[in-house]
Amino acid sequence: MIEFLNFIPLNLKAMETSTKSLISIEKSKTSKIDKVDFDNLAFGSVFTDHMLVCDYKNGAWENPKIVPYGPITLDPSAKIFHYGQSIFEGMKAYKDIEEAIWLFRPLDNHKRLNISAKRMAIPEIPENYFMEGLSALITLDEKWIPKKAGSSLYIRPFIFASGQGFHASPANEYKFMICLAPSGSYFSGKVKVLIEETYSRSANGGVGYAKAGGNYAGQFYPTQLAIEKGYNQVIWTDDNTHEYIEEAGAMNIFIRINDTLITGPTSDRILDGITRKSIIEIAKDENIKVEVRKITVTEVVEAAKNGSLKEMFGAGTAAVISPISTFGHKGTDYDLPELQESYATRLKNRITDIQYNRAEDKFGWRYKL
Amino acid sequence: MIEFLNFIPLNLKAMETSTKSLISIEKSKTSKIDKVDFDNLAFGSVFTDHMLVCDYKNGAWENPKIVPYGPITLDPSAKIFHYGQSIFEGMKAYKDIEEAIWLFRPLDNHKRLNISAKRMAIPEIPENYFMEGLSALITLDEKWIPKKAGSSLYIRPFIFASGQGFHASPANEYKFMICLAPSGSYFSGKVKVLIEETYSRSANGGVGYAKAGGNYAGQFYPTQLAIEKGYNQVIWTDDNTHEYIEEAGAMNIFIRINDTLITGPTSDRILDGITRKSIIEIAKDENIKVEVRKITVTEVVEAAKNGSLKEMFGAGTAAVISPISTFGHKGTDYDLPELQESYATRLKNRITDIQYNRAEDKFGWRYKL
Repeated sequence: MIEFLNFIPLNLKAMETSTKSLISIEKSKTSKIDKVDFDNLAFGSVFTDHMLVCDYKNGAWENPKIVPYGPITLDPSAKIFHYGQSIFEGMKAYKDIEEAIWLFRPLDNHKRLNISAKRMAIPEIPENYFMEGLSALITLDEKWIPKKAGSSLYIRPFIFASGQGFHASPANEYKFMICLAPSGSYFSGKVKVLIEETYSRSANGGVGYAKAGGNYAGQFYPTQLAIEKGYNQVIWTDDNTHEYIEEAGAMNIFIRINDTLITGPTSDRILDGITRKSIIEIAKDENIKVEVRKITVTEVVEAAKNGSLKEMFGAGTAAVISPISTFGHKGTDYDLPELQESYATRLKNRITDIQYNRAEDKFGWRYKL
Repeated sequence: MIEFLNFIPLNLKAMETSTKSLISIEKSKTSKIDKVDFDNLAFGSVFTDHMLVCDYKNGAWENPKIVPYGPITLDPSAKIFHYGQSIFEGMKAYKDIEEAIWLFRPLDNHKRLNISAKRMAIPEIPENYFMEGLSALITLDEKWIPKKAGSSLYIRPFIFASGQGFHASPANEYKFMICLAPSGSYFSGKVKVLIEETYSRSANGGVGYAKAGGNYAGQFYPTQLAIEKGYNQVIWTDDNTHEYIEEAGAMNIFIRINDTLITGPTSDRILDGITRKSIIEIAKDENIKVEVRKITVTEVVEAAKNGSLKEMFGAGTAAVISPISTFGHKGTDYDLPELQESYATRLKNRITDIQYNRAEDKFGWRYKL
């Protein structure tokens, strides 16, 4: 069994003292912001004026710098092109009505990035580089944070192998970057999912729990096949029996049977989603009965047939909470009921109210920039 | 079960007629060749004067061009950095004593590249772009083909997602490139391997059979752990029981028990190695008894204990045939005997004699440039 690091809450105050000295800033001479239609944002396709870049060379991360957003140059033998050595995180920045900027559990993203780094043999990024980099970059481009409901500033920290050579071994140079993309919803409209029974996302002892680039490319083809059949996403199952529900690639999966909310346990095959674990805590706080246990496909199909399956939804940073309207399995589509008072809506309201500073944050998850 | 394309031999003559019209060439004004120490080449760390680049845009592969070897420029949101959408091939060019240049089964590499492409949702590359690109590039840089025994010109065709955006879906733009690297041996000295019992390389229904970038990065950390224990490579086992021998990441695995040569069957978890299948055919031609069947770890350990395990070796383009001197399993090292007349040596001589045009090629594998 692979050991996971625990997420230990750190002292946020201690970190803020040295801010602004670490990061050098080269400002863009012009801004692209006037060319952006903030009322019609797609997901992750428009980028702000600046980006953070930090190189790993000679065994150490160099000082991070903020520069105008623009192309990067690499040798064709850079290992990212050949061996997929890359990891990333997904985060969002929120503005409240008083224009204060908030992040949501950013230290958890830093911890998870380093968990991914370890599994992918990438050097870990120091916490102050990550946190101060985020802070300086978002502050600089804060006008790009969308105000329209449902839109947000999507934050993409990522690390990839820039070192050269065709030997199949870890690179000796890396780039850590942060880019910002004002974004609309990840899904538009109802989400139909297909429970996969042929392809798989991850192996026992593999890299499924890491936010590694290759985990995503491997899902594209099976997802395309599902899209051709009229679904939006695939719900992955275990690679050995296809009987256990795992995750949906871009989100963790929750199901509600009668009044119990159930989600699968994380493992070395399943991403430890920050939205997922927040939803578990909020649901408990709402006095919803929560079970974290293995979910079988048979159980979900039976529950759909006998009417006890009330809801299914995905949870993730990009997708927030995305209610599933239909799931397909072995050629049959099962429609979920439309509830007046769904857990999905209730939990989405609770978490977004915390994220946008519209309500008390009893969990201490909000992080002010 | 996933269907695999068959490798159908094509008419080589038909393809040669249109050569040299398709590829545009911009020659380098200077050559770096005088700076290279051809007597002390590492693997894949020095590159020739030119490279081939071909872009996929607006739904089609544009005309390929050969340009001076140099950096490439990409948007930071290019999907290769985020979602690991990349595939590659490994090939070699050989020069005979009359300076004629030979490839080994290049059409099989093209077929396999497109099998990988399909699984990774990458547009397939036309055969003439691949073959004519190879031919024009290697002919232009033919002085770079090393003559020293054990050295060769390693050829790296690869395709990666250059299209932009953070949506986790296939890119709309790609780059197909070929780079050339005069290279020494992949392994130096004896190869010690560790039979893995915790980590895994691939899942049933996953991408293990594709030469996808992410398959390699996922191996780096477990391989580092093995290296720290004194081994060179990991022999992967199935992710469910760790009882079946799969492959060694950079090579397929053969074992010899008494006088029978055994290798595992290919599957959706195991790369269909071109050296592997050539070795199977050569061994049969040598009247060696060959079995393609599942190999259990228990069987290998038992054979090592009772002395019936005579040889283990890896087979791959980069590694050619690499005899294994020791394998480790559950804390015990098992040394292989040193044979005077090993299958490994005999088969390596046969295949390299074909590759370097030192012997008859009754199989029709050699391909003259």
